[in-house]
Amino acid sequence: MTGETNHPYVPRDLVLPDYVPVFLSQSTILAVYGISSLLVVSFMWLLSGRGLKKSKADRVLMCWWIFTGLTHIILEGYFVFSPEFYKKKTPHYLAEVWKEYSKGDSRYAGRDSGVVAVEGITAVLEGPACLLAVYAIATKKSYSNILQIAISLGQLYGTLVYFITAILEGDNFATNEFYYYAYYVMANVWWIIIPTTILVHCWKKICAAFEVQPQKKTKSR
Amino acid sequence: MTGETNHPYVPRDLVLPDYVPVFLSQSTILAVYGISSLLVVSFMWLLSGRGLKKSKADRVLMCWWIFTGLTHIILEGYFVFSPEFYKKKTPHYLAEVWKEYSKGDSRYAGRDSGVVAVEGITAVLEGPACLLAVYAIATKKSYSNILQIAISLGQLYGTLVYFITAILEGDNFATNEFYYYAYYVMANVWWIIIPTTILVHCWKKICAAFEVQPQKKTKSR
Repeated sequence: MTGETNHPYVPRDLVLPDYVPVFLSQSTILAVYGISSLLVVSFMWLLSGRGLKKSKADRVLMCWWIFTGLTHIILEGYFVFSPEFYKKKTPHYLAEVWKEYSKGDSRYAGRDSGVVAVEGITAVLEGPACLLAVYAIATKKSYSNILQIAISLGQLYGTLVYFITAILEGDNFATNEFYYYAYYVMANVWWIIIPTTILVHCWKKICAAFEVQPQKKTKSR
Repeated sequence: MTGETNHPYVPRDLVLPDYVPVFLSQSTILAVYGISSLLVVSFMWLLSGRGLKKSKADRVLMCWWIFTGLTHIILEGYFVFSPEFYKKKTPHYLAEVWKEYSKGDSRYAGRDSGVVAVEGITAVLEGPACLLAVYAIATKKSYSNILQIAISLGQLYGTLVYFITAILEGDNFATNEFYYYAYYVMANVWWIIIPTTILVHCWKKICAAFEVQPQKKTKSR
């Protein structure tokens, strides 16, 4: 089965030989992601409340980093290393996620190089760095704030490239308006809002540390 | 004058209607960039040596930020906002730069969306941020180190996307091997080596500041 209109994606002339339609319903796919994320976040919230006293802000940050880190590594990592996910003949949850998400942005099924590059950097570099951030906050490492800024900047840069390339290519990759807003906009806008918030939060802490610390002239030489 | 082989770039089927060949010689183009950069850097070196005592490291950093900032704003800024640079009928230095550089990477003439997105972020956000970094180092601002890390990470991310998308698209955009190594590799590799060095340098300073500073529990709440 080959052809040009065997899939639900836009643009209609996108060629996806041997495309196999999505098996699971939209609500099943979202529920699995939602419930797994809720479990992970709850687990982290409880765990971070034990032992060494942590501020609420730090515990919320740990929840965010474990959630976004696992999303990067598992969901986005699968996409990066599975160019033929849309051909999967049996229900494979991760393939289903990307078959479904491609309704909001067909560049995923179409393997757009900009999308693959950004997702590759996100899955391989930023994902593990997020888990390191959980550890860094938990153990109050001196690199905790700067690491969180580095990852947040990476997430912001990636999301910017993601949106800008779409606009430059005509911004016509969604099956319809619903998927455009529900998937393409809503699923990504969090990776602008939250990293920006963390960036401001940690930036202020670093500036404060330098205002407290007396400048040592010999050190910078 | 239209056609498919009216230009020197690879791939040969790249369509560039109304392409006008480069007027200036390679050595002229390089000499103008080299001499202007040398003048800017020398000026910054002398200027940074006056007034408040600066470490040599800080003075070198100021030279780098003014050089890379002006390159981002002027050279890359011109590219971003001049989609038809290859049609210029009179010698326009900035158009000549990109006509010449396209021999190393035809995605510039071809207006690849990944390249334009990265160059857009670099010219519009990172360029002015580089000039801010010069000011921040000069006036010993508390955000100096974190700003330099932020820009360096952006430069690294951009260069990564630049190389990864090229590889994903077949890595066949150079007119010949000479231009591949001289332009595509050599002109970009500095934006990996230098930002990485600065990243390590400033990262250590920030960690040191947090090791000196006693952690305040109330502040993080």
